[in-house]
Amino acid sequence: MRYVVILKNMEKLTIVKVGGKIVEESNSLKQLLSDFSKIKGNKVLVHGGGRSATALAAKLGIKSEMVNGRRITDTEMLKVVIMVYGGLVNKQIVAGLQAIGVNALGLTGADMNYMRSEKRPVTDVDYGFVGDVKEVNASLLADLIDKGVVPVLAPLTHDKAGNLLNTNADTIASEAAKALSKHFEVTLMYCFEKKGVLMNETDDESVILDLTPALFEKYVSTGVIQGGMIPKLENSFEALKAGVTRVMITRADLIHADYGTKISL
Amino acid sequence: MRYVVILKNMEKLTIVKVGGKIVEESNSLKQLLSDFSKIKGNKVLVHGGGRSATALAAKLGIKSEMVNGRRITDTEMLKVVIMVYGGLVNKQIVAGLQAIGVNALGLTGADMNYMRSEKRPVTDVDYGFVGDVKEVNASLLADLIDKGVVPVLAPLTHDKAGNLLNTNADTIASEAAKALSKHFEVTLMYCFEKKGVLMNETDDESVILDLTPALFEKYVSTGVIQGGMIPKLENSFEALKAGVTRVMITRADLIHADYGTKISL
Repeated sequence: MRYVVILKNMEKLTIVKVGGKIVEESNSLKQLLSDFSKIKGNKVLVHGGGRSATALAAKLGIKSEMVNGRRITDTEMLKVVIMVYGGLVNKQIVAGLQAIGVNALGLTGADMNYMRSEKRPVTDVDYGFVGDVKEVNASLLADLIDKGVVPVLAPLTHDKAGNLLNTNADTIASEAAKALSKHFEVTLMYCFEKKGVLMNETDDESVILDLTPALFEKYVSTGVIQGGMIPKLENSFEALKAGVTRVMITRADLIHADYGTKISL
Repeated sequence: MRYVVILKNMEKLTIVKVGGKIVEESNSLKQLLSDFSKIKGNKVLVHGGGRSATALAAKLGIKSEMVNGRRITDTEMLKVVIMVYGGLVNKQIVAGLQAIGVNALGLTGADMNYMRSEKRPVTDVDYGFVGDVKEVNASLLADLIDKGVVPVLAPLTHDKAGNLLNTNADTIASEAAKALSKHFEVTLMYCFEKKGVLMNETDDESVILDLTPALFEKYVSTGVIQGGMIPKLENSFEALKAGVTRVMITRADLIHADYGTKISL
């Protein structure tokens, strides 16, 4: 029997994840949406919104409690994050992108059941209504992207039992990237307030340009890399292993500069 | 030259519009979603959410002001309705439908630019950020419906200049119905707290079973039909003229009973 290898020429897709701060101030949001709109071809935007959630919670007399950088999400806080992440932040981004010709579509994981999660088990910490991703259904999403639609993903998933769950935006980005890598050649860009992963946190120019798992382990053991950067990088390596082509960690205004920390295996 | 008439056998689509009250209490919402899920074939749900918006506004110290049954929407109230209609109410319906096997997708008019509006001009009343619908782009919506997706439409549109606008849910329903009637054989069901349009508002059983424009004019002139029912019925006649096959006004628990006020031309 003879085999024929069919090389499918996958289209490129760029997934940009931005933190809360940049999307929560109108000037930085406007600049971000303009920069994002100039990415050629297929694209997806993933956003946070923690500061706005904290602000709304405070106005409503609900206390924000964070453990290991993650928000404790009780019933009242869940309503706040659904309103802020799924409503205010997501829909304002969608409207802002539509104004500059990007055919955006705002989504939570419940929409088209694209991302299902399970409530995180209670261990030493009870995070409340926080979801760990279990399943990504990317085919309808991929169809829409093929038609020119630009998904805007809020940091919310659902358990398919009627509950929305608060889910870290970095995780949403890497899970979406992994699932969409079956349909596209995916570049995942994590944007935060620095130009990349730094060798010296007091020197903004000390960007580590290339990061491999071996270097990562070394830097974690020596304390160069710590805190919230560790899960972000673990997500990055996992994404590459699962078929994502390219992962970059950079600052949002540098998404066209090809500058930042390039993650490779 | 000879012409060939091609008869396209359109699929049926049922659009159900429900008011705020039914979706804002967990028991009635659960029953509604169950009833709605049992509608055979293609379907769309359109919802309000005014009571929740008023409640959140009150908690935030924002006063709700209504003129002719319509909400005055200033900058702060706009944020409230984006959070409540686009976030809390919409996404909880979507998650609730997903739990019972309906592949729901929550949308505002900004999403996929499916419904564009313009800010209502200031006349004797300044309604603020309220949108009058100008354009419906139903083709992506129709594609998704063909794939089994069930759109859940929040009462928000956008002006394609970056602003979301508060838009009456009855209008969202009739505008969506008109545009989708190019793709489907559309039944539009307006659900409210009565079994239909009543001859005598103190007698819940006095349902007018058939209503034509001539009867409507007569009943308006004699005061039988008044208030918010007038624009609802005007929307209904317009929808029929624009190609919608069937319009019913009934109570949400009767959507399978084929009982209520049938609107015809």
